[in-house]
Amino acid sequence: MLTVHAPDGVPEVTEGADLAGLLLAALGDHALRDGDVVAVTSKVVSKAEGRVSYGDRDAAVAAETARVVATRGGTRIVRTRLGLTMAAAGVDASNVEQGKVVVHPLDPDASARRLRVALHERTGANVGVVVTDTAGRAWRQGQTDIAIGAAGLAVLESYAGAVDGYGNELAVTEPAVADELASAAELAQGKLGARPFAVIRGRADLVLAPDDHGLGAVAMIRDDGTDLFGYGSREAVVRAVAAAPGDDVPFGSTASPQDLLDALRRAGIDARLEPDEGSLVCPADQKVAAAVLAFAHGWRVEPDEAPDRTDSGVDLRLRPATP
Amino acid sequence: MLTVHAPDGVPEVTEGADLAGLLLAALGDHALRDGDVVAVTSKVVSKAEGRVSYGDRDAAVAAETARVVATRGGTRIVRTRLGLTMAAAGVDASNVEQGKVVVHPLDPDASARRLRVALHERTGANVGVVVTDTAGRAWRQGQTDIAIGAAGLAVLESYAGAVDGYGNELAVTEPAVADELASAAELAQGKLGARPFAVIRGRADLVLAPDDHGLGAVAMIRDDGTDLFGYGSREAVVRAVAAAPGDDVPFGSTASPQDLLDALRRAGIDARLEPDEGSLVCPADQKVAAAVLAFAHGWRVEPDEAPDRTDSGVDLRLRPATP
Repeated sequence: MLTVHAPDGVPEVTEGADLAGLLLAALGDHALRDGDVVAVTSKVVSKAEGRVSYGDRDAAVAAETARVVATRGGTRIVRTRLGLTMAAAGVDASNVEQGKVVVHPLDPDASARRLRVALHERTGANVGVVVTDTAGRAWRQGQTDIAIGAAGLAVLESYAGAVDGYGNELAVTEPAVADELASAAELAQGKLGARPFAVIRGRADLVLAPDDHGLGAVAMIRDDGTDLFGYGSREAVVRAVAAAPGDDVPFGSTASPQDLLDALRRAGIDARLEPDEGSLVCPADQKVAAAVLAFAHGWRVEPDEAPDRTDSGVDLRLRPATP
Repeated sequence: MLTVHAPDGVPEVTEGADLAGLLLAALGDHALRDGDVVAVTSKVVSKAEGRVSYGDRDAAVAAETARVVATRGGTRIVRTRLGLTMAAAGVDASNVEQGKVVVHPLDPDASARRLRVALHERTGANVGVVVTDTAGRAWRQGQTDIAIGAAGLAVLESYAGAVDGYGNELAVTEPAVADELASAAELAQGKLGARPFAVIRGRADLVLAPDDHGLGAVAMIRDDGTDLFGYGSREAVVRAVAAAPGDDVPFGSTASPQDLLDALRRAGIDARLEPDEGSLVCPADQKVAAAVLAFAHGWRVEPDEAPDRTDSGVDLRLRPATP
């Protein structure tokens, strides 16, 4: 049996607040036990850490943004300085005084570690901690809560080497249990603000030894440049067409010659593979389209010059941008 | 308090199995109550419905695929005939006899409705049902369980019009509670196959009246063509460069003239807006790049001809593809 208890009656959290004390007071007789996982919303962690600012939401979003992923109308989805891909960089104006905005904690994994240590010191209980926030997703409507910080928790459950009842290896199965714990917490907390904590009991197997804080939620973030969905579809096209010389970070790993050849031919470009050279050759009068496709595959037109939007008379040679 | 109980001891599920009977037998003394949510893995629903086939995994993936979203190495992420974006179209070879593959139920929302009705008839309890599967995500490592079918459940919790304790409207907050319920179930079930059911108690507010099966999990799927991440970044570029005449379904809604103008200028194309015409004009020697960017923004080069990879001498006019 898994249980999720989100205590009521937590008072307003202000800068400098003692989160461990607030949780323990709200839990009352529900003492923490070894193996519990404590979820806390990033909102109150930010408030306790003073990560609240007056007024300028756009400036707060800009400060939290590493790069823009996609925009459409008023929606701006960005990759944040923490590596999270979220609308408005996770900057939030709900459950805070009107006219103020809350930004993410400076280091949510460190916030989780501090709360874990404080709870251990005061109760002796060895718990895991997740710091949660609400995030939209590609492909699906609505939002789920995810873990943006974690301590003392196996954030990804590994089944590497595990075998099911039929003898099949569970090779690629790696449940993102920290995110599932955050979602389970949200179901008990709701969104109206009075229940920023939840205690999840029943997955003690995920909680690490007291002196092992684990990899943290940062381990759940795909590296920039390796994600297949690192840019919105439209933004990816703009980036490829506008690519400057030297902008050699493509959309994931460098494609094989065959993959690029397939893409060129799909676009009607009569390319051929030069196996000895590890390069592709195509007609110069298709230079612009070839350069755009090359960029998208981690290749470039040689010599290394910008696609100049005009076509010259010699054949083009394409090579991987990072040999 | 939210509780999630995943009973042990469910026997192997085979074609024609009575899922309601199997669940009730496994629950034993844990009787279902009004307002419970029953989660069941799509794996056993498929097995009970005979959606298991021998051998040819690639053929099964092809049959479930509506279109390819992104590929990289051996990974093929597709949009399935159900509208789900999943690796290998959700075709799975785990927790099934070696040499067999399991595909999604034909209509998971209908499967959920049937189970809901059967449980109501036998127990009198009004429950919600989610049919779950394990899915990867953009941007984040690992997988979470999501709802691919649902009955009698508010799959998206609406806070439209709700106001937090500070008087802020929660305008865009819409928790995907059916997915969160699926994730909570997974935490109790694990992946090794003996616990295909879970009963979640504590969110009776999400369960609809017995004669109202709700919108189903299909309501959680973003419409194709409106999703900002409908194609992998690389695949979006290939699609835009290779676009055929008449392929007028772009990446989301038609962009504003200003958005396209910004993209053209970012690519070094000296375009200008003709406000009276609702069109953009740019030099013909930049035709290929302009056509690619126009496609990505839901516009096209006029007259409606394929980008021919060569550039002619007259100015180009760009117009929205769907006026």
